[in-house]
Amino acid sequence: MSLRDYLAAQQQLIERELERLVPPETAPPATIHRAMRYSLFAGGKRIRPVLCLEAARTISDAPQGIETAACSLEFVHTYSLIHDDLPALDDDDYRRGKLTCHKVFGEAMAILTGDALLTLGFQTLSHMNSVGDDRKTRIITELAVAAGTVGGMIGGQVADLEGEGKTPDAQLLESIHRAKTGALLRASVRMGAIYAGADDRQLSAISSYGEHIGLAFQIVDDMLDVEQSTEALGKTAGKDAQQQKITFPAVYGLVESRRMAETERLSAHQALEMFGTRAGRLRELADLIVQRTS
Amino acid sequence: MSLRDYLAAQQQLIERELERLVPPETAPPATIHRAMRYSLFAGGKRIRPVLCLEAARTISDAPQGIETAACSLEFVHTYSLIHDDLPALDDDDYRRGKLTCHKVFGEAMAILTGDALLTLGFQTLSHMNSVGDDRKTRIITELAVAAGTVGGMIGGQVADLEGEGKTPDAQLLESIHRAKTGALLRASVRMGAIYAGADDRQLSAISSYGEHIGLAFQIVDDMLDVEQSTEALGKTAGKDAQQQKITFPAVYGLVESRRMAETERLSAHQALEMFGTRAGRLRELADLIVQRTS
Repeated sequence: MSLRDYLAAQQQLIERELERLVPPETAPPATIHRAMRYSLFAGGKRIRPVLCLEAARTISDAPQGIETAACSLEFVHTYSLIHDDLPALDDDDYRRGKLTCHKVFGEAMAILTGDALLTLGFQTLSHMNSVGDDRKTRIITELAVAAGTVGGMIGGQVADLEGEGKTPDAQLLESIHRAKTGALLRASVRMGAIYAGADDRQLSAISSYGEHIGLAFQIVDDMLDVEQSTEALGKTAGKDAQQQKITFPAVYGLVESRRMAETERLSAHQALEMFGTRAGRLRELADLIVQRTS
Repeated sequence: MSLRDYLAAQQQLIERELERLVPPETAPPATIHRAMRYSLFAGGKRIRPVLCLEAARTISDAPQGIETAACSLEFVHTYSLIHDDLPALDDDDYRRGKLTCHKVFGEAMAILTGDALLTLGFQTLSHMNSVGDDRKTRIITELAVAAGTVGGMIGGQVADLEGEGKTPDAQLLESIHRAKTGALLRASVRMGAIYAGADDRQLSAISSYGEHIGLAFQIVDDMLDVEQSTEALGKTAGKDAQQQKITFPAVYGLVESRRMAETERLSAHQALEMFGTRAGRLRELADLIVQRTS
């Protein structure tokens, strides 16, 4: 199967499971379920859930029910986008080419919608009955730590806000991004691997892969913000420079940033060595993360 | 031990555990840990954690480590206060007699601080090692559902916002409050009971107690908003009428509201019958909820 067909099939699997897990628009109070669905089904690439599925398959054949765990990552990712886009934070009007949640539903509802998706992420994991309670609690811990303040997503977001206008600094840059985007991408593959019963050696290899693609993802994200148009990105381009964010192009320039992303891609491949051909799709996903244009 | 001394001892136990569970102010990024601590240690009465502890003790003697589970309730409760107080929601400047989180740390940080406390609630539960994984995942589910959109806290908050200015209606009123405050109070005692190994009959009795004190709590809260001064409450009094909220005094008047609170208190006592003297403190806590003046 071509990578394109493979991705389409995975995305379909995820969409169906998201559909099943989110309360219907008719469930009261309807507004918040409408708002949750608006942001969830706004055309995301589902990269975190797909990484979770594929990491699980690298460890064991077709682990049943893994798509449920994978969806929790999309809930948490979508919550973070909704809150990041709020006027008090990045103040963005567009996301994935559509009006942001607060532009459509108002600020109060957008705050509550983010809260609801974060909560649903944990509820989804705790409700799973396709995996034992020991693995389940380890998976919940992974998600909570990756979303949290110490080395996790919220911590990265705070450091990023506080970094605005500061002198670009390589060490600060890497620590922000390891936390802000890296932690959840790393958790995506770790959660899949734990679900599928990875042993310590396997989990350590998968973690290393997750760290390298996490860094590659953010380097490329920073570059796209400089190189691409708002139309191509589906969100406001050039925002980082405007907000004086510490970014890879700001610290290293575009040419060196591209070279760094390529190095991370190769390191991600190397981390997968022990899995041989089983990890073919994970390698392709690393390539895709570096070669994407939006 | 007098109720006052008992409460002081419980609160001290909870404060100590909260202190242990929240990252120190020195942990980077420091701002968010400072903001989390500012709101957490603003002098809350810790009623939810105390209910959790006491429900557990009603089922089994001194269940070890229960204070950790109890603290997750305070994290989730505090997150909900921080987000409720935001300008886009209730726009309150004072809480527990101190400036609200966004007045001190700004809106962006207050949004992230709420997010962080919600996340820490789940992380705290998933990290517990004093209880088996089966009970742990049941407890996580309790918290997630009580905090969520379907019959939970966020659902109640949305219904409450949407109810502003509507004709007061008894059925809508009860459904809002069962979700908005009732669900988390009910979860407080259920989580304690599950932690301590309650059987189905015990859990059902504890749930019934939780529902009655939940309703009593909200009736009294609505009455205090009318009867008390801003100074006594530590938050802006008279806010409900100003925002045209659907409240118990608005629907039933103060005299009938007081009678209803008393009925709920007695029903809460009745629900505890099977526990005999073991449930003495839970009975006192029900009395306290109805008799409090702030």
